[in-house]
Amino acid sequence: MPRTLPPNPSDVPAAPPRAAAGPGGGARGRPAVSPNLRLDQRVRERVAAGEDVLHLGFGESRLPVPPLLVERLAAGAVHQDYGPVEGRPAVREAGAGYFARRGVPTTPDQVIVGPGSKALLLAVLAAVPGDVVLPAPCWVTYAPQSRLLGRRVVPVRVPDGCGGVPDPGELASAVRHARAAGADPRLLVLTLPDNPTGALAPPELVRRVCGVAERHGLLVVSDEIYRDLVHDPVRPVLGPAELLPARTVVLTGLSKSLALGGWRVGLARFPDGPAGRALRDRVTALASESWSALAGPLQEVARTAFAEPPEIRAHVRASARLHGAVTGAVHDLLRAAGARCPRPAGGFYVYPDLAAVRPALAAHGITDAPSLQARLLDGFGVAVLAGHHFGDDPRALRFRVATSLLHGDTPEERLAVLHAADPVTTPPVARALARLRAVLAELTGASVAADLSGVR
Amino acid sequence: MPRTLPPNPSDVPAAPPRAAAGPGGGARGRPAVSPNLRLDQRVRERVAAGEDVLHLGFGESRLPVPPLLVERLAAGAVHQDYGPVEGRPAVREAGAGYFARRGVPTTPDQVIVGPGSKALLLAVLAAVPGDVVLPAPCWVTYAPQSRLLGRRVVPVRVPDGCGGVPDPGELASAVRHARAAGADPRLLVLTLPDNPTGALAPPELVRRVCGVAERHGLLVVSDEIYRDLVHDPVRPVLGPAELLPARTVVLTGLSKSLALGGWRVGLARFPDGPAGRALRDRVTALASESWSALAGPLQEVARTAFAEPPEIRAHVRASARLHGAVTGAVHDLLRAAGARCPRPAGGFYVYPDLAAVRPALAAHGITDAPSLQARLLDGFGVAVLAGHHFGDDPRALRFRVATSLLHGDTPEERLAVLHAADPVTTPPVARALARLRAVLAELTGASVAADLSGVR
Repeated sequence: MPRTLPPNPSDVPAAPPRAAAGPGGGARGRPAVSPNLRLDQRVRERVAAGEDVLHLGFGESRLPVPPLLVERLAAGAVHQDYGPVEGRPAVREAGAGYFARRGVPTTPDQVIVGPGSKALLLAVLAAVPGDVVLPAPCWVTYAPQSRLLGRRVVPVRVPDGCGGVPDPGELASAVRHARAAGADPRLLVLTLPDNPTGALAPPELVRRVCGVAERHGLLVVSDEIYRDLVHDPVRPVLGPAELLPARTVVLTGLSKSLALGGWRVGLARFPDGPAGRALRDRVTALASESWSALAGPLQEVARTAFAEPPEIRAHVRASARLHGAVTGAVHDLLRAAGARCPRPAGGFYVYPDLAAVRPALAAHGITDAPSLQARLLDGFGVAVLAGHHFGDDPRALRFRVATSLLHGDTPEERLAVLHAADPVTTPPVARALARLRAVLAELTGASVAADLSGVR
Repeated sequence: MPRTLPPNPSDVPAAPPRAAAGPGGGARGRPAVSPNLRLDQRVRERVAAGEDVLHLGFGESRLPVPPLLVERLAAGAVHQDYGPVEGRPAVREAGAGYFARRGVPTTPDQVIVGPGSKALLLAVLAAVPGDVVLPAPCWVTYAPQSRLLGRRVVPVRVPDGCGGVPDPGELASAVRHARAAGADPRLLVLTLPDNPTGALAPPELVRRVCGVAERHGLLVVSDEIYRDLVHDPVRPVLGPAELLPARTVVLTGLSKSLALGGWRVGLARFPDGPAGRALRDRVTALASESWSALAGPLQEVARTAFAEPPEIRAHVRASARLHGAVTGAVHDLLRAAGARCPRPAGGFYVYPDLAAVRPALAAHGITDAPSLQARLLDGFGVAVLAGHHFGDDPRALRFRVATSLLHGDTPEERLAVLHAADPVTTPPVARALARLRAVLAELTGASVAADLSGVR
């Protein structure tokens, strides 16, 4: 956070045509509430006023919480003391084991828990000098956090059909260009699997991007909060920390895989070696002047969740399977409606591009990303977050569909959806898909309605 | 947090002789872990290694948690969703009622909950431009937070025998001097009752200081986290928000009055009027990019605690009575040992000055605040936090004694101490007092040992 929250410094003008706004382009000037949280608040207000909103605008899962974790929360009441800033030893040990099981040998002193991976990311950004290289599009928070800290943002396009990891060639040239323009890029944030695209960068792409990061002296921050929600259980995931253990910070948390966004539990792994230890110490110092420590009861939850007993593993696996089924069905609907739309590989997002049906959309007053988000909500009762919030080109007709709130309105419905053999045929999901199908048909006109009718 | 965590900017050289270091004088350059959390960590390590430490160094209470709040924590498990950044409506309503019962009419939209009042304070400081005026001495966190944000600190001496509120005349001249020197003081942090001194600023002093703040256009941040622990239940407390409702932010939390430091619950009240609303919006925006929202289960705790049902009121009242008795006994011991030491009026701190026995202490290698803290821990097994950590003169022999960890080692002992008719005669407290008496006798020499023997 800068001295006086002034108008933010200019981003480095390295944005390719597809990402003209730069990530989080709407966040210039005074800070605004994060657009996803703001949209969710608006939807809540509309629903409270009696409106029937199809809420595809917020990456919040309300799948059942494993009873084991509810029990640990209650048992954690005994932790009324502050405890170590980094987290209790048993919690850090569980966190270290979590990373070790994912191909990155880790000691407990390399991990820190905090109130959400977002707070940990802000502390990491604050602790490392320099400007921030981001994939475009990327999660709505990276750019605003960078700008709050007075850093410049260097957006780099992701390869077509991919997400979360920039094109290696464009990364190298963007870093050179930024340095020539007086910027000081030092951090590269990657997202595996990605928000908003749902893509999982293939190992070869991760390898090439890590090579560029190493050659250009960039610290990699790997946001892996959706990692345990890769849909295909045997698909290999190569994280940057396996390749660059001494220059990668890994972030994760319980918000997505365990549907515990509201419990605010984040975990960070710091790089191997002396530089990693120094960075950990700086983040710990910042944490000590900010949140002091993750709340004790939630540390107890974290200890159990990151230890991954069979009950937790099975629950997360079932969740990943569900998200794969629902995002797949939404993807099919969108494709049938004329969207260009890579099939998601992890998490609960779909990121369509409606360029091919632009004339039909124009008839509804939809001509760019902001009008797309506004008209879908006001005219059709459908909440989505448009691409410009993710640093994508505001002229493009891209938006993020979050499927995480389609699993029903009650805990019983959501439990049934989680364990259904074919989740897309369960009443809440089927209803949501039918409504989306109808909206897409109305939006894109009769010409594609026939195609759509064939898609369940 | 500044761009690159550079060496911190120079503080304004307005420090009077008694506070030559400026608050948190040790925090220049790279950020370090907050000294109180660091000391507590060291004491934990010594205790784990088998050492018997008299821990007077950390303001953490482990008094029993009211069963009602343990129950609400468990019930709060249902709040797995993120919810509004500011806090759920029912929580904000409870928070508004809490302030209204303390003489400040408040609407729910004026309050925000967060993961500790420390995190809220950092966000408030970040949201308001300008430099920060602090009482000297003051809580260890104010100055490091200000410096992390790249602000300058203007320390102003507290009147003799007082604490938490600066001398009004010196405040006015320090602000003028700072402005003439190119600084831009805009915030004044007050602490009622105070940490480290345990003093409660009398209404007349608050009135005069608020007058100066208003004349000089300062926003007041009133840290009232110890307010419900004023020892005398009929002593009037005049908070700055009663006098300057449109230019005072009030901060509180559950860490002290309900011994829930490890649960991390903070509450902020924003000023009346449009400027207050704008400040609330900026803090909300910063919160949305940092902690997102207070964890849902802890919001449920906050809702009940700030509603103050009779069970909670009685518990807090009993705690305040206990802290009054124990700090009073420690105060008597220190006075008998030759210390200058105002009698605490609230909270669980005593802040003695051993200037009168300087020659006796020199024989033990104690010549200033740092050596006092080091020798007490290494030579006598007594942990205290020395005055320089609070921005006091490092040459002075002042230190903070925290009595909050003297209530026993088990929940049963602490429950008995809480409800004892005469807490200082209970075994854990009596043992701690006896040990402190012995250490003081050894430190100050036989000359005062006789006096000490008369003090229980």
